Amino acid sequence: MTGNGIKLENVAVVFNRPQLSENIGTAARAAANMGLNELIVVRPRHLDEEIMLSSATRIGQHLVREMTICEELSDSVADFNYVVGTTARHGAFRGPFHTPRELARELIDVSRENRIAIIFGPERNGLTTTELRLCQATVSIPTASPETSSINLAQAVLIIGYELLMAGSSDLPVQKPRLAPAGELEEMYEHLKKALLDIEFLQDWNADHRLMSLKRLFNRAGLTHGDCNLLRGLSRRIENSVKYRPWVAEKRIEERDQDST
Amino acid sequence: MTGNGIKLENVAVVFNRPQLSENIGTAARAAANMGLNELIVVRPRHLDEEIMLSSATRIGQHLVREMTICEELSDSVADFNYVVGTTARHGAFRGPFHTPRELARELIDVSRENRIAIIFGPERNGLTTTELRLCQATVSIPTASPETSSINLAQAVLIIGYELLMAGSSDLPVQKPRLAPAGELEEMYEHLKKALLDIEFLQDWNADHRLMSLKRLFNRAGLTHGDCNLLRGLSRRIENSVKYRPWVAEKRIEERDQDST
Repeated sequence: MTGNGIKLENVAVVFNRPQLSENIGTAARAAANMGLNELIVVRPRHLDEEIMLSSATRIGQHLVREMTICEELSDSVADFNYVVGTTARHGAFRGPFHTPRELARELIDVSRENRIAIIFGPERNGLTTTELRLCQATVSIPTASPETSSINLAQAVLIIGYELLMAGSSDLPVQKPRLAPAGELEEMYEHLKKALLDIEFLQDWNADHRLMSLKRLFNRAGLTHGDCNLLRGLSRRIENSVKYRPWVAEKRIEERDQDST
Repeated sequence: MTGNGIKLENVAVVFNRPQLSENIGTAARAAANMGLNELIVVRPRHLDEEIMLSSATRIGQHLVREMTICEELSDSVADFNYVVGTTARHGAFRGPFHTPRELARELIDVSRENRIAIIFGPERNGLTTTELRLCQATVSIPTASPETSSINLAQAVLIIGYELLMAGSSDLPVQKPRLAPAGELEEMYEHLKKALLDIEFLQDWNADHRLMSLKRLFNRAGLTHGDCNLLRGLSRRIENSVKYRPWVAEKRIEERDQDST
């Protein structure tokens, strides 16, 4: 099944700010059930290894033993080329939502050459809008109705893992470019943001919102290292273009006036 | 989603010889998550209503309150037209195994006119061969390997419920935004080109080639009318930013000098 399916060894699950050690354990087991064997835990409220190991059972124990612990979500995914956030469909984020099946279809090709991180939010509140900005795609688990949409961490991991495991077989792979890692993307976006603030395409009050529109567009495309270079080149040119804004010109006039006296 | 999917109101879940009240509750919740709202419990080891209700949470409580309790599995499914047994693939039963997805596909048509029961075995051992003989079909949940195949009752219910809920929707095209018509695209690209020439991100000798890199990126994303507006807004800002390039400043200085003479 994995022959032309998803390269699961390229997929890590990230538990962001999990509240209970027991949940980490049961969710690690669910990941292992479906063949996901890399776990990153970001800023857990507290960690009790014994509880984690016992709730992970024999199936998920290796994930708990080898898990990486991070303090910052952005650091945890900096080396990943494709970052997916899980979210409730009715949340604050207004991006394009994938079902787990659509996501799995997408990841078949992406997983050939790219490392993929799938972020799961804390039990009660899910990922914040800021956290979702780190993600190129979001995935929501369908439920019968908004009233029945609450599922626990292990269940969310299980369903998404199940779809990743099931993915493949019929679709012919389309060659996907190797995508830029999240750290490189973030740096590029910082640079772009600064340039766009310079020319007032972004203003302080709308910067994040408007930049998000651009990011969504770029996320749909999937940015490569080359694309990042292209956009950084553009940012430099834009920065350069504002060197001669009115106040700069005025200053030069003043300097000239002073020289001539 | 359910228009050409499964009539979920025709599907009941049957928990056969469940061991723990807590498991009944969490599994009832999982069923309700996915829109399965009929529960039959056969020969439970014991029932603690309070535990069941609290683990079912608000989402699954109605299933617990209205569940039917039976002494015999055969009685419990006697009125159903189509009975499905869940089993581990490596179990004793040698019948044809469906994946949950194959089962769901099968049930789309069956559910129109028939009542369907899906039986889940006790936590440790699953359904016996005798019990499986009551079933017209069996379903096994795929896992990464036989060593990682153990999942709990609620998880089994969740995944099968998820596939039933998703049935019929898998052929729906992935929601694609409505794209901008070619004419609008061309006009936007002309505008962008002019702006990028202004700031010398494009130069006459490389303009077409470099613009093509950008176009390819945008084509991968697929630009909407909104995206075109966004990029035209950006182009205007870029054009605006070069109003005060050196020669403009020089000209202003010259004018000033002339005025002062």
